[in-house]
Amino acid sequence: MKTALSDLGQRTAPPPISWLMKAALARPKLISLAVGFTDNATLPVEASRRLLNQILHSAKTGQPALQYGTTAGEETLRQLTATHLQKLDGGHDRAYSPERVIITGGSQQLLYMTMEALCDEGDLVLVEDPTYFVFLSILQSRGLRARGVRLERDGLDLAHLEKVLTQLQKSGELRRVKALYLVTYFQNPTGATTTLAKKCAALALLKRFERAAGHPIYLLEDAAYRELAFPGRADLPVSQAEPPLGPTTPPTALTMPGARDRVIYAGTYSKPFATGVRVGFGILPEPLFTAVLRIKGNHDFGTANLLQHLLARALADETYDRQVVKARHNYARKACVMKSALVKYFPASVEIWEAAGGLYFWARLPKKISAGVNSKIFQTALKHDVLYVPGELCYADDATRRKPANEMRLSFGNASTADIREGIRRLGAVLRKFV
Amino acid sequence: MKTALSDLGQRTAPPPISWLMKAALARPKLISLAVGFTDNATLPVEASRRLLNQILHSAKTGQPALQYGTTAGEETLRQLTATHLQKLDGGHDRAYSPERVIITGGSQQLLYMTMEALCDEGDLVLVEDPTYFVFLSILQSRGLRARGVRLERDGLDLAHLEKVLTQLQKSGELRRVKALYLVTYFQNPTGATTTLAKKCAALALLKRFERAAGHPIYLLEDAAYRELAFPGRADLPVSQAEPPLGPTTPPTALTMPGARDRVIYAGTYSKPFATGVRVGFGILPEPLFTAVLRIKGNHDFGTANLLQHLLARALADETYDRQVVKARHNYARKACVMKSALVKYFPASVEIWEAAGGLYFWARLPKKISAGVNSKIFQTALKHDVLYVPGELCYADDATRRKPANEMRLSFGNASTADIREGIRRLGAVLRKFV
Repeated sequence: MKTALSDLGQRTAPPPISWLMKAALARPKLISLAVGFTDNATLPVEASRRLLNQILHSAKTGQPALQYGTTAGEETLRQLTATHLQKLDGGHDRAYSPERVIITGGSQQLLYMTMEALCDEGDLVLVEDPTYFVFLSILQSRGLRARGVRLERDGLDLAHLEKVLTQLQKSGELRRVKALYLVTYFQNPTGATTTLAKKCAALALLKRFERAAGHPIYLLEDAAYRELAFPGRADLPVSQAEPPLGPTTPPTALTMPGARDRVIYAGTYSKPFATGVRVGFGILPEPLFTAVLRIKGNHDFGTANLLQHLLARALADETYDRQVVKARHNYARKACVMKSALVKYFPASVEIWEAAGGLYFWARLPKKISAGVNSKIFQTALKHDVLYVPGELCYADDATRRKPANEMRLSFGNASTADIREGIRRLGAVLRKFV
Repeated sequence: MKTALSDLGQRTAPPPISWLMKAALARPKLISLAVGFTDNATLPVEASRRLLNQILHSAKTGQPALQYGTTAGEETLRQLTATHLQKLDGGHDRAYSPERVIITGGSQQLLYMTMEALCDEGDLVLVEDPTYFVFLSILQSRGLRARGVRLERDGLDLAHLEKVLTQLQKSGELRRVKALYLVTYFQNPTGATTTLAKKCAALALLKRFERAAGHPIYLLEDAAYRELAFPGRADLPVSQAEPPLGPTTPPTALTMPGARDRVIYAGTYSKPFATGVRVGFGILPEPLFTAVLRIKGNHDFGTANLLQHLLARALADETYDRQVVKARHNYARKACVMKSALVKYFPASVEIWEAAGGLYFWARLPKKISAGVNSKIFQTALKHDVLYVPGELCYADDATRRKPANEMRLSFGNASTADIREGIRRLGAVLRKFV
């Protein structure tokens, strides 16, 4: 008897990182620089307790938080989200409309539903090389194709984007291209931040190819790490070679002329506030907003109201802002520890992309050396109880180029500073054997 | 320029009830017997505050609740869920394995992901006539077809199920049938509960047709209202014609021999505990469990941990049980008020399906009289500021039969007892004009 599973059900692969997690569980002494968890010690335990007590202190505020809400999300939170984004964009005069905001179960849900609303099986999405691997899993599961565009330290390689679009036009595949997906701030996995000029140029390029595509090509801006910019750089021993990225991050692509109908913005409160409080949001142009809203009606008809009320209160009384400042200082400190350890323990031939925010550093070994899942380096590192994410897992399946295997994502989000130091020391010792 | 939306994005219809909700907002004095919200006054405001204070009192318990968890769900909650179900099934000796439990964002998410894992566009799902309308929206959005099977007061009409399966076999469509979807306890919209004997017979029938289908046909048991059984019946003025349904509901289909590989169970903590705390769960056989788990990895890689920790604590210290008892008594009282009002104000020719639990009564007018969205009855009721869900919205699109339009779903979940009485009085007055 055959399986009853759908094509999607049969096709969906296990998450590439799940066996890494299993490997971690099997070795209790393992130091994981792989996991994308946030820092435990700075989680807002006390603040959440205080806010939840305020909410649940009376029936008047408690009952609405424990009741169903609407599919688009709690009105106050939608408004606060619009205001919050406007503030992040430096009070940019373009007001964000709460009517275009949808509150979701983390930004992951927004990414998923956007792909549902936009892409049929076989459609193409342009992604950064490398990119966020769970986004790649969405594409894999849904039978979508990805085309990788080279990533530089300040964002997309625009010449390569133009080349890819031109090739797709020549091969008649441009009509299958629906979106360009960019993780624009302190990118997962590389830590790179895309400049506003590059976002602007990318959007213009997409526009130019729209006529040949016959339909809009959207810029999907994933800003998950946006608020985790390190405060200033003076307090950090940063090499002079690094671009002087301050605490102010570039505005979102939403601020650009012509963006209103073409930019989808995916944001989240989970990473800056608490990852156990899964609340993300999207700002979407029509007709996508309506389509995604209807799809969400079928997914869950609204994100848990209690979490939305918690976040709305945190934003309103600035608990949220204080928590973000705390998180930023904390990650800056941990990044600093990792940086020092990398300088001390890693061979000089390893190129480090040092992030100015977020949770990750990116390490590039000399080209011919593999740090992939089956490499001696990865296996030896595991034997020495240290785990990283092999960079190759962050590259889309794209037959037009080989996946580089010489890279590593190093996370300083969850490990203690002692573990970061010791983990990098162990990894450095392994690398010195093979590099 | 054409739209870039996918087939799904273009196809997905607005929820049938969204305009009802808008109509409600436009009339501030409107009494809504339409909305499926739970009762505000019994929401566990105080209990949730106490439990959240316990969780967030120390870093030791607070931090894990505010951190990411695993995709399948928090281990303690999965274990407690397995134990809880075993208890609901009367300590049935078949132990439920926590390894088969997946925690979801409400049971709605489980229904959605199950359809993703099981059905390709054009596949068929058998549903009750009538059934839960948001499940029908999932089918509509995903391009799936539904076939309605008549519902009796004690569950599915088995002869009709057999007839439908036989017809599908003859027309060569049996291979497209993937599942039978049943809302087995105090069904939405009719309040009907399916007997164990009928679940057993339905499962046997599906098995019989599997060989011709060439693949398993699953029984998807949606038990969303299971725990909202009214306590005893002695305290209620129940007509003698009603079957004596006590507080003990039939065991789930999972308890039946041969069910292990064919029954999918969708449950929820949201409705019995708090609808603002969206936590549902599923028990799934392989290969569905693995497929749904992978899909959830792409949807959100795990339900908000804070909510899971809250529920786990509520289950462990019996706060949950106390809340359920409170809710059951409260809904029994409200159902009793609605029943009395129906007896007093509705014409005798209207047949009432009185529920022994859940949130809904079902009213059937004489066959030729329409209570549909465009009917005089619905419009006049709206003019008199009372809203119900037209029964026709709960019937699948199924060309093999006409949708009955003579029915109404009447909810006593959210309205106050005074509003229930007054709403039924107004509705009765309208009906007396037209029936």
